[in-house]
Amino acid sequence: MALRSEWEGFKANHWQDDVNVRDFIQKNYTPYDGDESFLAGPTDATDKLWGKVQELQKEERAKGGVLDCETEVVSSLTAYGPGYIDESLKDLEQIVGLQTDKPLKRAFMPFGGIKMAEQAAESYGYKVNPKFHKIFTDYHKTHNQAVFDAYTPEMKKARHSHIVTGLPDTYGRGRIVGDYRRVALYGIDYLIEKKQEDQANCGNGTMTDKVIRQREELAEQIRALQGMKEMAAIYGYDISAPAKNAKEAVQWLYFGYLAAIKTQNGAAMSVGRISTFLDIYMQRDIEKGILTEEQAQELIDHMVLKFRMVKFARIPSYNDLFSGDPVWATLEVGGIGMDGRHMVTKNDYRFLHTLENMGPSPEPNLTVLYSSKLPANFKKYAAKISVTTSSIQYENDDVMKPIWGDDYSICCCVSATQTGKEMQFFGARANLAKCLLYAINGGMDEKLMTQVGPEMAPITDEYLNYKDVMHKYDIMLDWLAGLYVNILNLIQYMHDKYYYEAAEMALIDTDVRRTFATGIAGFSHVVDSLSAIKYAKVKTIRNEKGYVVDYETEGDFPRYGNDDDRADEIAVWLLKTFLKKIKKYDTYRDSEPTTSILTITSNVVYGRATGATPDGREAYKPFAPGASPSYGAEQNGLLASLNSVAKVPYEYALDGISNTQTMNPNALGHDDEERKNNLVNVLDGYFDQGAHHLNVNVFGIEKLKDAMEHPEKPEYANFTIRVSGYAVKFIDLTKEQQMDVISRTCHERM
Amino acid sequence: MALRSEWEGFKANHWQDDVNVRDFIQKNYTPYDGDESFLAGPTDATDKLWGKVQELQKEERAKGGVLDCETEVVSSLTAYGPGYIDESLKDLEQIVGLQTDKPLKRAFMPFGGIKMAEQAAESYGYKVNPKFHKIFTDYHKTHNQAVFDAYTPEMKKARHSHIVTGLPDTYGRGRIVGDYRRVALYGIDYLIEKKQEDQANCGNGTMTDKVIRQREELAEQIRALQGMKEMAAIYGYDISAPAKNAKEAVQWLYFGYLAAIKTQNGAAMSVGRISTFLDIYMQRDIEKGILTEEQAQELIDHMVLKFRMVKFARIPSYNDLFSGDPVWATLEVGGIGMDGRHMVTKNDYRFLHTLENMGPSPEPNLTVLYSSKLPANFKKYAAKISVTTSSIQYENDDVMKPIWGDDYSICCCVSATQTGKEMQFFGARANLAKCLLYAINGGMDEKLMTQVGPEMAPITDEYLNYKDVMHKYDIMLDWLAGLYVNILNLIQYMHDKYYYEAAEMALIDTDVRRTFATGIAGFSHVVDSLSAIKYAKVKTIRNEKGYVVDYETEGDFPRYGNDDDRADEIAVWLLKTFLKKIKKYDTYRDSEPTTSILTITSNVVYGRATGATPDGREAYKPFAPGASPSYGAEQNGLLASLNSVAKVPYEYALDGISNTQTMNPNALGHDDEERKNNLVNVLDGYFDQGAHHLNVNVFGIEKLKDAMEHPEKPEYANFTIRVSGYAVKFIDLTKEQQMDVISRTCHERM
Repeated sequence: MALRSEWEGFKANHWQDDVNVRDFIQKNYTPYDGDESFLAGPTDATDKLWGKVQELQKEERAKGGVLDCETEVVSSLTAYGPGYIDESLKDLEQIVGLQTDKPLKRAFMPFGGIKMAEQAAESYGYKVNPKFHKIFTDYHKTHNQAVFDAYTPEMKKARHSHIVTGLPDTYGRGRIVGDYRRVALYGIDYLIEKKQEDQANCGNGTMTDKVIRQREELAEQIRALQGMKEMAAIYGYDISAPAKNAKEAVQWLYFGYLAAIKTQNGAAMSVGRISTFLDIYMQRDIEKGILTEEQAQELIDHMVLKFRMVKFARIPSYNDLFSGDPVWATLEVGGIGMDGRHMVTKNDYRFLHTLENMGPSPEPNLTVLYSSKLPANFKKYAAKISVTTSSIQYENDDVMKPIWGDDYSICCCVSATQTGKEMQFFGARANLAKCLLYAINGGMDEKLMTQVGPEMAPITDEYLNYKDVMHKYDIMLDWLAGLYVNILNLIQYMHDKYYYEAAEMALIDTDVRRTFATGIAGFSHVVDSLSAIKYAKVKTIRNEKGYVVDYETEGDFPRYGNDDDRADEIAVWLLKTFLKKIKKYDTYRDSEPTTSILTITSNVVYGRATGATPDGREAYKPFAPGASPSYGAEQNGLLASLNSVAKVPYEYALDGISNTQTMNPNALGHDDEERKNNLVNVLDGYFDQGAHHLNVNVFGIEKLKDAMEHPEKPEYANFTIRVSGYAVKFIDLTKEQQMDVISRTCHERM
Repeated sequence: MALRSEWEGFKANHWQDDVNVRDFIQKNYTPYDGDESFLAGPTDATDKLWGKVQELQKEERAKGGVLDCETEVVSSLTAYGPGYIDESLKDLEQIVGLQTDKPLKRAFMPFGGIKMAEQAAESYGYKVNPKFHKIFTDYHKTHNQAVFDAYTPEMKKARHSHIVTGLPDTYGRGRIVGDYRRVALYGIDYLIEKKQEDQANCGNGTMTDKVIRQREELAEQIRALQGMKEMAAIYGYDISAPAKNAKEAVQWLYFGYLAAIKTQNGAAMSVGRISTFLDIYMQRDIEKGILTEEQAQELIDHMVLKFRMVKFARIPSYNDLFSGDPVWATLEVGGIGMDGRHMVTKNDYRFLHTLENMGPSPEPNLTVLYSSKLPANFKKYAAKISVTTSSIQYENDDVMKPIWGDDYSICCCVSATQTGKEMQFFGARANLAKCLLYAINGGMDEKLMTQVGPEMAPITDEYLNYKDVMHKYDIMLDWLAGLYVNILNLIQYMHDKYYYEAAEMALIDTDVRRTFATGIAGFSHVVDSLSAIKYAKVKTIRNEKGYVVDYETEGDFPRYGNDDDRADEIAVWLLKTFLKKIKKYDTYRDSEPTTSILTITSNVVYGRATGATPDGREAYKPFAPGASPSYGAEQNGLLASLNSVAKVPYEYALDGISNTQTMNPNALGHDDEERKNNLVNVLDGYFDQGAHHLNVNVFGIEKLKDAMEHPEKPEYANFTIRVSGYAVKFIDLTKEQQMDVISRTCHERM
């Protein structure tokens, strides 16, 4: 690419010769060590637009959760004319672009599954034009149909019993973060040119299945890039060339993201690591004197406003799993570069500041890439935002950087991915607690009372013997790992075939690294159950057919979450064992298997499907979320709990270890100043031990109870809490989930 | 399957426990050694219906080749209500079922390529509803789009220059013969049950790409079987159970075939080897006294009538290649079983007799599986039909049976395939004559004057040196073989992905054998050219840029087609060399590479794309078709010509070696009796040498010339001739092709 006038003022380097956004950032960003005093408040335009969006959100809630639903138009890059928050306010919108023609209107996305798309509309009282049923059944087969065509009976049973669960077999798999910054830095034409070059060099002419697939995918990507240009043109923008200034950079980047959310409805549709990148444009314009701080903040506020409005049409069972309408528009701030310079810029403040300018909000899913070596001012500012909004999460840059470098994004709630260089085959979770019950009951499902697992000899002892249980559990885990990997191989194959993410992959290197993301549910309950069997006496209680349906535990036993190595060692063992078993199996497209301990709000649904466990958890009650210790298990305060979780090695759970904690404001300090300082200390200590993630909530149980009883109070309209891996408006949770959140340990002491 | 009442009277064997039609045939058929005297003439119903169809065909011709064209309905098993030849005559139709709702109306089949489907309609003045353009572009991608997405620039160039040509990249690949007999013998429900069993046993749970694909294909097959039941129900038939009598057997079988031609538009849509099978039902009913010979003949006549009506909407360039609207509804009679018993039944007579009852016709493409050991009566009857109708072809059962067993079908014009056990990846042809010119001109295309092949050093000598030419030709053939296989790998991959033949594959064993059918064009011209270079002096004539564009040959040289080993050895060398080079490359789905020497009428188009050749063929003039000697080359009479072709080893061209010959009636004898006896002698002699195929035409050049000049004469309405691999109504050929046929050698002496 010849030197472009749009790049004037940027330091030259390799990024000018090849697509290399990281190189551009490292050569050009300006670290900021100051405090938040430079920040500007919301502009009138921001107030008006956010006011309008809040009105719409209120209307949406009043209508049962969905404001409007498309029934006539199949979503695509160019399916709609331009859409604005409010036609009469459209000149105020610094950053434009909606998923459909109207704000908060949900698009019709049938490629994942036509039945799902129809049901989603129907569950909110809309009826999709019946012609689409024929089109997406007779003419075009959907991902969902294809997956079910190929499932084995065993897979269907395992899915039905929820020993594997949350599978992306009816909608997009998500978790693929296009490098949307490329649109701003290079413009679409250059990106097309590079992809054409890749296609010209794809394969030596020998047409193996692999080469054919890759060549076809590149053609789809090039088509998607051309579509992005057309989409932008609908809004009056020509994005064929690089962005010339900060406003264009924000707008171009957003168009890239908009392309993704117009064409895919994955559970997680992350934005990625855009803050430091965009700051370079802000800084250049500010230095040129063509951008004020107020204008810079307005650009960020307006883009964030758009991220707050991303919506997908979901079916009730999906909402059950992932409550509160999340989209995981995850966006990162902070982090430290490979060269040791921290990457905090003014923009990182601006993004956090949106939570002050426009109040708390679950989306975008703001994530601080944390290190104790981040500038003190920034750590304090983030902690302050946590204390006042409970809307952000922290992830340990010190453990992620060695694995993923210094330009990774978070592609879902907590999972890292190299921006523009990697994609993930998302794979939801295996229920390891249910697997333990299968080991005990010889593959019989304890809830359905049907044989789901292999017909192993069940344990017939009255009292469980640790060695026997471990032996059988090992065999059952082997079975589950194999079944799970094969289900995922099948789903990913069909997803590539029927619902390929052309727009996102067009913004990722052709020579892409693929990870294969498995996950663990029921973690703490397995750990505590095995601990109970080992250190106490666990008596089995059987039904009339002789299957164990409950347990009585006599005596005390160490529990995970108390910094007690006896329990915590079991936690480490469980993770390592599961991942090793997963890795025994071939994974689709030679992807790299990883695993995670995170469950979002699905801990409630997973628990609902799982019988009583030997740790004392009652049948069908929620699991603890992610890698969090079980409710009531933590007896030694916040720090002991954090210490336990920190022992779980990130290297074995590269897809993430999610820990959610709630602290009573009083436990953190007497005033917000003391609280933020203490929170920084907690975070420094926790992450310096190598822990991966922390959701920080700062409020008391009373507030939750009051919000549950009085959701109509204005102060609860935007009351946001962090649940496993994301933030949610508390009043948008189901009653069951609200109860679950309330029953979680709120640390009253450090 | 429990013993079914529908099977009463049949001899029991393995076929009752598994799908095994061959076993059923071998246990139950009744060889017939008598003559044709038992045959019945057409019924009134047959006359009326055939009369009506002839009227429609006349109307069709008057309208420029297409009577009616669908523009609103996408073809599928159940897209239409019942359709009849004539609503007022529908009770006369013993065998029902049309491709669309009206006779000779062409269906809209967009899955191979929407543009092709639209153009086909447009070229006859019809306009496809534009909504389908969006559906088959934005919602569903077609085979054609996918292939072009993945083609390399080199592939596109090779396609454009016609060095590879006739590729099935815009429509169905065809050449897959479902075992339609299974529908009659077993009924759909049992076939579904067996496919479900196959799916249950497909893979051990490890989801490799191969297993996933197979499982999905089985699901599609099962859906297609269910669709066939629905399709039959539209006509008032329940085909879930086996056929109870001859009429049902014919009808059930035809429904199986109808499913294929409603869902696929391959160039070749063969019916297969059904004659002996159906005779078993006829025989049982005749013995029971519930069927007369007249009724038996009527069933066959009416089914054949349906085969004569199969139509597809084609684009002009397709019609150019395959002139006269052929569909290759190829259907076999004759043959000898592995146990030595001939398989001729009364039904084999009945099928040939349709050409008498309803006059000559190009379809179905009637093929006699020939052996000198067939009953003399049958050989004579077939020869008589040849002499009077020129509508049938002969293939050597003695050479095919050792390879394909005794239940093979002809899946295109001449290519054998094991019925119900095999499918073919059809791959059209490589132009070996053009390849020779590339070897001489260093990869420069002699017509387009663009570089298509590798940039090898061209031959710069004034006179061609045999050793040099052979050396360069060997290298160029290597290049062509590799490119050709890789193009086909890509096409077959996309066909499986975007236009899978579920209905046909549902009637083929799951554990299917796949052949990979390549083909050779320009065969005789390469042989004669190499002979000229070797045995005479070939001077190059160059254009201003120095590329050879013509040749002057001084002196005489042996030519293929005269039983001269010097030329014929080159023919054998060429075939063997090409196949060995093809076999160097990996082929899609581990299929078995084969090749053929057959060109249908495409010899004209292939020739049109190819410059002058050293054998004296002028630039852009037609090739000789298939493996036939070049026009004018044959100087030693019919038998010498046949001897030359017979030397080409079938083992190296398992996909077929097509030879077309025209004999003057006078050369064969003074009257039809003498002619048929002489023709039998010719066939015995030819096939006993191991030759593969012969198209037999018996007429003089004068008749052709007269028909070309006076196509309106009633005697030419159904005047059918055999061209390379199929029969065609002479008046349906383009002028260029008529001229080509006329210029072919008509043997005036034996």
